[in-house]
Amino acid sequence: MHIETIELERQPYGTKTPTLTVYAQDNIPVQAGRKRPAVVICPGGGYQRCSEREGEPVALAFAARGYQAFVLDYTVLDHAQAARGKALLPYPLYDLAHAIALVRERADAWSVDEDRIAIAGFSAGAHLCAAYSALSRRLTFPFDADCPLRDISVSAQILCYPVIDFSCGWPGDDVIAGAISDDKELWAVQDLVDKDTPRTFIWHTAEDGFVPVRNTLRYAEALDAADVDFDCHVFHRGRHGLSLATDQTGGDDEHIDPHVARWLDLAIEWLEEDPR
Amino acid sequence: MHIETIELERQPYGTKTPTLTVYAQDNIPVQAGRKRPAVVICPGGGYQRCSEREGEPVALAFAARGYQAFVLDYTVLDHAQAARGKALLPYPLYDLAHAIALVRERADAWSVDEDRIAIAGFSAGAHLCAAYSALSRRLTFPFDADCPLRDISVSAQILCYPVIDFSCGWPGDDVIAGAISDDKELWAVQDLVDKDTPRTFIWHTAEDGFVPVRNTLRYAEALDAADVDFDCHVFHRGRHGLSLATDQTGGDDEHIDPHVARWLDLAIEWLEEDPR
Repeated sequence: MHIETIELERQPYGTKTPTLTVYAQDNIPVQAGRKRPAVVICPGGGYQRCSEREGEPVALAFAARGYQAFVLDYTVLDHAQAARGKALLPYPLYDLAHAIALVRERADAWSVDEDRIAIAGFSAGAHLCAAYSALSRRLTFPFDADCPLRDISVSAQILCYPVIDFSCGWPGDDVIAGAISDDKELWAVQDLVDKDTPRTFIWHTAEDGFVPVRNTLRYAEALDAADVDFDCHVFHRGRHGLSLATDQTGGDDEHIDPHVARWLDLAIEWLEEDPR
Repeated sequence: MHIETIELERQPYGTKTPTLTVYAQDNIPVQAGRKRPAVVICPGGGYQRCSEREGEPVALAFAARGYQAFVLDYTVLDHAQAARGKALLPYPLYDLAHAIALVRERADAWSVDEDRIAIAGFSAGAHLCAAYSALSRRLTFPFDADCPLRDISVSAQILCYPVIDFSCGWPGDDVIAGAISDDKELWAVQDLVDKDTPRTFIWHTAEDGFVPVRNTLRYAEALDAADVDFDCHVFHRGRHGLSLATDQTGGDDEHIDPHVARWLDLAIEWLEEDPR
């Protein structure tokens, strides 16, 4: 496996340089020419940071199942700019667009099947994915001038304990909500679901006290109403932010739950089944 | 295993004698005195019949996992009585109450743990279970006079592609709905969920064209709002009535789906985890 961290274009927001870390497997001789499905992972962290627990261990879990995996370290909230009234979004959306475009651009070098690029987000990172699924189809992204027409579409999204509707729990107040986005359309991304939304796998724990499960139920209803292919799994127990819910991503017993950990097998099974 | 079909009390409706078929395992010597959890299965069939595909094969699947299993052949729609304006419910609810009371009464003989009696219903049988979960706590059931105070409570319910809200799809018209129940409270059983509703495992397929998945999503929302312990699983593909979704319950490829078949493992894992 080839691991490499690539700097993406800086956004006119904050001080961080977004990066994409690549976990690309080389084909062994009997697999010569094989193209692999890809997954671009957006960790959570309340748009304040990108959590390591939802980065590399998740990439390795997908890699172990035959995926080329990519972890996006996207632009996050900057207090100085928030204080000046400048919102964070759409900048992380541009980071994700750059990441998808880059994966597609280097698909040959990285043995990626361009028709099977999924995104997977956790918590706020899942909000980013759901917003991207809606907006990437209708916004013009400010790419560099020499490559204006990149294909930034994705074939599927995996939303793990997602922030969907800002009225459901996190972020809790309009100040933080406004710092994230001054476009209120992004405060309730279930309303942006339509028949062209990428097929979706979504899961949550029922006792999540931080980002309540009704976020997921509202998105599932919208997917159903729009006739989008979807799997939805709610596990009864478990705090917010379980990631893989295994020892790989858990610091203590509260983060380890074999029942919740089934989501990964379910998600990969779903990814590999065609929708009807 | 001891298999026996027991006739239950006839209801003043229709011509069928309801029965309970018992699949009770004997303890092998090293298990002397072991009490096993029980599951009482209510097959579907649109309240017109009790489907064999959702009876014995399901009982055997639970038996293989250490459960004492019971299949209820409950009172169903009778066209002559429907024509005279007499509704089917509450009679199948009484059948289920009799079944639960009987399981508890013979708990010693059948090695049943009285504190772990679950009900599992499919389609219309799941409507029966959800209605029972609400009404068994507040209705007086017409038991025989010498035993007026039987304990008919259950500790958990498993709802498989349930009919929850009559406005969501099946039964489709008010004539059939009225023949099932003249109590409109039972036309939308999600409205009967409260904090005392037994913990619930609920699943559906997103492309169910007969009993749409929104039945399950509405019930899940109500469980969440009432803070009831629950697991909810929506699988993207699969027609209505998959039962175990294996060769055991499938006549053809349309009934066999390894992804959907995961529901049983998920349900048993959930049953065996205490709620918090």
